[in-house]
Amino acid sequence: MPVQLAQTFALFERALRVVPGGIYGHQTPALLVPGSYPYFFARGEGSHVWDVDGNEYVDYMCSYGPIVLGHRHPVVEEAVLAQMRRGNCFNAPTELFVELAEHLVDLTPFADWAVFAKNGSDVCTWAIAVARAATGRTKIVKAAGAYHGTHAWCSPLPGGLTAEDRANVLEVAWNDLAELERTVAGEPEGIAGIILTPFRHDTFHDSELPAPGYLEGVRRLCDAKQIVFILDDVRAGFRLHLAGSGEHFGVRPDLACYCKAIANGYPLSACVGREALRAAAQEVFFTGSFFTSAVPMAAALACLRELAATDAIARMAALGTRLCRGLEEAARAHDLEVVTSGPPAIPFMSFRDDPGQSLNRPFCAAAAERGVYLHPHHNWFLSAAHTDADVDRTLAVADEAFRIVAASR
Amino acid sequence: MPVQLAQTFALFERALRVVPGGIYGHQTPALLVPGSYPYFFARGEGSHVWDVDGNEYVDYMCSYGPIVLGHRHPVVEEAVLAQMRRGNCFNAPTELFVELAEHLVDLTPFADWAVFAKNGSDVCTWAIAVARAATGRTKIVKAAGAYHGTHAWCSPLPGGLTAEDRANVLEVAWNDLAELERTVAGEPEGIAGIILTPFRHDTFHDSELPAPGYLEGVRRLCDAKQIVFILDDVRAGFRLHLAGSGEHFGVRPDLACYCKAIANGYPLSACVGREALRAAAQEVFFTGSFFTSAVPMAAALACLRELAATDAIARMAALGTRLCRGLEEAARAHDLEVVTSGPPAIPFMSFRDDPGQSLNRPFCAAAAERGVYLHPHHNWFLSAAHTDADVDRTLAVADEAFRIVAASR
Repeated sequence: MPVQLAQTFALFERALRVVPGGIYGHQTPALLVPGSYPYFFARGEGSHVWDVDGNEYVDYMCSYGPIVLGHRHPVVEEAVLAQMRRGNCFNAPTELFVELAEHLVDLTPFADWAVFAKNGSDVCTWAIAVARAATGRTKIVKAAGAYHGTHAWCSPLPGGLTAEDRANVLEVAWNDLAELERTVAGEPEGIAGIILTPFRHDTFHDSELPAPGYLEGVRRLCDAKQIVFILDDVRAGFRLHLAGSGEHFGVRPDLACYCKAIANGYPLSACVGREALRAAAQEVFFTGSFFTSAVPMAAALACLRELAATDAIARMAALGTRLCRGLEEAARAHDLEVVTSGPPAIPFMSFRDDPGQSLNRPFCAAAAERGVYLHPHHNWFLSAAHTDADVDRTLAVADEAFRIVAASR
Repeated sequence: MPVQLAQTFALFERALRVVPGGIYGHQTPALLVPGSYPYFFARGEGSHVWDVDGNEYVDYMCSYGPIVLGHRHPVVEEAVLAQMRRGNCFNAPTELFVELAEHLVDLTPFADWAVFAKNGSDVCTWAIAVARAATGRTKIVKAAGAYHGTHAWCSPLPGGLTAEDRANVLEVAWNDLAELERTVAGEPEGIAGIILTPFRHDTFHDSELPAPGYLEGVRRLCDAKQIVFILDDVRAGFRLHLAGSGEHFGVRPDLACYCKAIANGYPLSACVGREALRAAAQEVFFTGSFFTSAVPMAAALACLRELAATDAIARMAALGTRLCRGLEEAARAHDLEVVTSGPPAIPFMSFRDDPGQSLNRPFCAAAAERGVYLHPHHNWFLSAAHTDADVDRTLAVADEAFRIVAASR
């Protein structure tokens, strides 16, 4: 199916001249399917986005998470405009800084305080330093393959790193409590912190929910050994539960890191923590030019209040469930078997017995060409703006895309 | 002089309950004078800000740098509103990402490409990784006491750090070319990068301009030893020269890091670099949830174009010069001697022979109580919105503040 992407390619040509690789990081075209995907967007409204060629898409990436209420949600935009009339970035915080910290503490059963930053990397890296300051230990345990940001201790690519950057980081397999216990037992000087995502959502893998007893076992181990349990809820936070994804899965960490959906696309991240870590939190220097800016905090308060005041979280779960069941059924109609994984609001789909997710490429390419923006190798996101009509349209497109995949085998 | 700060203290009480330390980082009240300074702001307009008690101030901190055109500059706000009507944060960049990279490359004689992030820390840390990737070496040289962000390799406070975090960082005295040459000669495996600010602007010190030949000597040394010369222009960038502060001081680095003033308060940072480093730049993973968001890029293009279209940079220099000369004169009238330092657009003032800047505290406190917001221990910032009337008022207030300091000796 011919798709008009002339403006995408013209812009990408220009980008290649003035940006290394043209587009970098998680948005790199290298993970998409050239010729089928747009590389630049022009506008968004609710659950739909338009690329620079004017093509319209049902948006199942939601900007890789931030857009939880839909693009340009009126309640958030109004709060942003109201704050812009007063200003954004000052020599000190505004009242919104206090209100938002109070709001997060009220939302979160285990949390007594909050801090704010701009990126997920900011708060995950700060959290491991707080764990070190609190325990006087240096070692951090993370799951192999888990993404916690771009900083040297956890960057997924080796370029520019030194051996010392990883000297204090140990890796274990996600969902393997026995390996985690052995790793902790093998460190006579102790572990400062264990950082985990609430479920496994590694790129190029099916998502994996915590096995029964896994997160509870991590909690018990941390309590027994005075290890700080850090939940990296950057990607999932506020899509599964307003008190954090730990509450959704039945575990309460010591620190939780948020970013993505906290302000419906306005730049903000946060870490919330327990009283016992307050003194350590004060010891670890943390700041940035825009950390206390008011506009993203106005957006966050509006976003979190709108999520609470509506059925947004239940709605995303219900629509995601309908999408996943529909995809499975549509695949079966073409004698294909797909695996849907992850919580329904943050779903993913792959083909059974398809190493490297090679069939996801023609499937997602066909969907993109027909106005449904999925990602072949990264989990997807629902927003509260998605509708049953969006899912209907998506399943109709999926039927055609499965037909193409089936014909190509 | 009684100053009404009831709302500041009420809010700070609330903040202390839900944020470790109440306010953290560079905005910590610990660096101000309690009872004289507000800790929370309500609004800003041009060169003036209002605290939560309704007190008005001439703002000489400009949010520690970002506000270069004045709060709520109409040209920037209009560009922001126009982009908000299309959206902000998408699955991929917008055309503004390419336009802004082209604009920075056009502005900067040595630069062939640009990347964008959110914090100054993001780009300074990424730049040292690019230097490592480009050279295959690990060691980085920085100036002792220089601030390059909060990441572990350079954080100014020790909380939460490990010995390995600093294993590959060497420190030299700023402006001491001989020491730098000895340090480089002492590393048989070579140095990956030297990172310097364009002038010394450490907190609790007078600012110090580069000695004649210093930056040129650094450039020669880097060329001779194939070391990447990184200019951390986060604090000074776009206040001294649109092509970067290197151009102002007559040196062209290999990488330059920007943040602060690039978008008049909207959250954005950037690194620009030479063609020879393009491949290394592609090797170092760099991304963030909001790195390609469109609204701050619209603000940056509007801000940089407004700076170019007006006499903003000359105006800041002229007003800063008038302020510094006026402060020296006002001090002399009270038999006090002050030292003004730094480029006039980013000035600082201290009292001669006043270790610990102890006299700056009553001086700046008296100024704050009278509606002039200076900082006792951190350099100040002019904006293009400052007026001769602002400086007149500031010098009148300074006269009273010097009288108080003189009386207290």
